[in-house]
Formats: sequence, C-alpha cells, structure tokens
Amino acid sequence: MTELDHPITHQSFAIIDRELGELPLNEKEFAIARRVIHATADFEFASLLHFSPGSIESAIAALQNSCPIVTDVNMVKHGIAGMVAKTFNNPLFAAIDFAAEPLPGKTRTETGLLRCWERYPQAVYAIGNAPTALLALCKCCATAPVPPALVVGAPVGFVSVIESKKALAQLPVAQIRVEGRKGGSPVAAAIVNALLVLAWNDLNPKL
Amino acid sequence: MTELDHPITHQSFAIIDRELGELPLNEKEFAIARRVIHATADFEFASLLHFSPGSIESAIAALQNSCPIVTDVNMVKHGIAGMVAKTFNNPLFAAIDFAAEPLPGKTRTETGLLRCWERYPQAVYAIGNAPTALLALCKCCATAPVPPALVVGAPVGFVSVIESKKALAQLPVAQIRVEGRKGGSPVAAAIVNALLVLAWNDLNPKL
Repeated sequence: MTELDHPITHQSFAIIDRELGELPLNEKEFAIARRVIHATADFEFASLLHFSPGSIESAIAALQNSCPIVTDVNMVKHGIAGMVAKTFNNPLFAAIDFAAEPLPGKTRTETGLLRCWERYPQAVYAIGNAPTALLALCKCCATAPVPPALVVGAPVGFVSVIESKKALAQLPVAQIRVEGRKGGSPVAAAIVNALLVLAWNDLNPKL
Repeated sequence: MTELDHPITHQSFAIIDRELGELPLNEKEFAIARRVIHATADFEFASLLHFSPGSIESAIAALQNSCPIVTDVNMVKHGIAGMVAKTFNNPLFAAIDFAAEPLPGKTRTETGLLRCWERYPQAVYAIGNAPTALLALCKCCATAPVPPALVVGAPVGFVSVIESKKALAQLPVAQIRVEGRKGGSPVAAAIVNALLVLAWNDLNPKL
C-alpha cells in the first residue's frame, strides 16, 4: 500500500488480483499489468504486455534521477502529470506540442517527436496513440550511441500500429510493449504511473 | 468523408467497417461505435454502447448551438479539444479543475462536477473516468427542471462503475452509456468527437 494512490484504487487492485489469478510475471511486471487493467477493465492486457529484460530497472533508475518523460500526445501527458507531481517532478513533455505544424509528409506527433529526440535522447518515451511517432522514435534509436531509458510502445489502432511495434521489438532498447492493435493513452499512462510508484516505493519503503 | 479527420483515420474506419459487418445500429449510432472502436481497437464496444432515444439528436442540436461541454477529467477534455477547435469552439471544462481540494467525504471530480452543474446545468456531460462524478451528476439530474443536453456515461473500472451506469439508466435523461466495467477517457472523447463530426457535417453537407 502506498499513499500515492486513492483508497478506491486499492479496492480496485484487490478485485483485479482476485480475478487475475496467477500470471507468469514477476512482482514488478504484475504491478504494471494490474494498473493497466485498472485503467481499461480489459484483462486481455495481461497477456499483451511484453517487458524486455532489465527494462523496468532501467526506467526506475532514470525516473528516480529526474529523467524527462516524453509522450506523443497530451492525453498521455495528462494521465501521467498527477503521479509525476506526487513523486519526482520529472520534466514532462508532449511531442505534439513541439509541432504546431507538421513537417512535409509527416504527422504532427512524428514531427514533434523528432524535435524532442534532439533535446532529450535519453528520456523515458511513452507512446500511447501515434504509430508514426513510434516509428520515428525507432529510427532515432537505431543509430543512437546511447539508447533512451525506456520506450513504452502502446499506440492503438488499425494502420501502422502493429508494424511500429514490430520495429520496436527488433531494437536492443529497454522497452515495454503492448502487442497487437490494442494500446492507448490510458494504457501508456498506466505503465508510466506504475513505474513511478515502483520507483518511489523503492526509495521510500514502508516500515 | 470529411476534412475534420486525417486520411489515416479514414483508412482505419474502412478497416473497422470491413471487420464489423452488420450491426443493429442506425447510421449515426454506427458512426459513434466506429469511432470508439478506432480509439480502442476493441470491437466489444459495439455491443456495449447504449443510446437512449433522441440522445444523438439532442446532443447535435446543443453542440451546434455552442453548448458547453463538461468532462470529468483532463484526459477526456484533451481528447475532445482538437475537434472542438475545428468545429464549434464550444466552451470546454474539466470538472476536476474546479476542485483543487475535495469537499469532505467526496472525490475531487465529484466536488468539481457539482460546481460545474451550478454553472452549466444544460451542458453536454462526458464522464470517462470517475463513477463518483457520474453518481453525483445523476443526483443532480434527478431533480433538475430541465435535463442536460446529453450525459455520456463511460467511466471505467471495478468500484461503483456499474452502479453509476445503472443509476444513469434509470433517469429520463438523453444518454449514451457504455455498459459494464469498460469505458475510459478515449471512449468518452470518441463519443463526443463523433457527435461533433455529425453536428458539423449536418450543417456543412458535401456536394
């Protein structure tokens, strides 16, 4: 239990734990899966989440060290802002805010993502909407001397979404992916919020 | 087709239409269901959506007349803001912004919702997160001389969510509900965005 969450959230977690049963996940992975299910009421996410080895530890260390967090869209940013304010006050940016107009042939989120990458190449990236932003991020990562602290790959939808997740899967980058078409802003936000809680509790153990 | 949406959105809609097949929905209801599925990649929403008679028409008329839109949380507000800016520039508020601190025994969204109700009792209300806000709204509606233009009842989760939707279902209020535990900010936002597009196209028919 942690005061970071409302008592109603803990009631919800208890219901989810009862219904989920045993999963092939470690304790930290389970905490992330549980919060995603809390945000969606969709138990399918328990089997769609993929964690690369060491990804959670990489993200926790970065978040504890005030690492910036870059999201693709404002819905993800606003889903994270509350927990950031209660924990490490990480700088928090939505890529789309860096692109009032898109570059030719690119989407706004893709354009903004490229501008964020120039500034914060080692951030925690959380993509919950735009596969174009995730594809652009993958291209950046492929040639980066140092990879970002984490990529959350959770765009949702029907065009380029699965392709963007496959591109991420092929990279040696710390990543938490949602396989398939599903994903979304609350999913990406829940993953980052779970990481913030893990990082906070790691430094503030209960007596 | 409308320029309100990106070409990628229309590609996605075409894929959804192929996979959805025939549904017991009229044209406007189908447009709403399609946009919810677009936002979630979850086809189950096609059978979870419930439209009260005349609800879509009530919402369209209100939105065309610059009716305010009140959401429970900022994620829903930000999911709507883009389409509002491209259409009717409706005043747009998140209830939680009206409650820096909660009233005793209430949540912040519930407290904020009550304050919004005092100001905008005939707004379009879109609840995508907090069942406490929906329950408070239902109590307000039960004694209102004139009901709000629409209530979108799409909170998500495990505590009080189904109860809040049942409370809404019992009221003679124009409503679009998502039955069961599912819902969420992108779902509530997609419903309002679909209504904004329908309202816009109604006034700006293609030649």
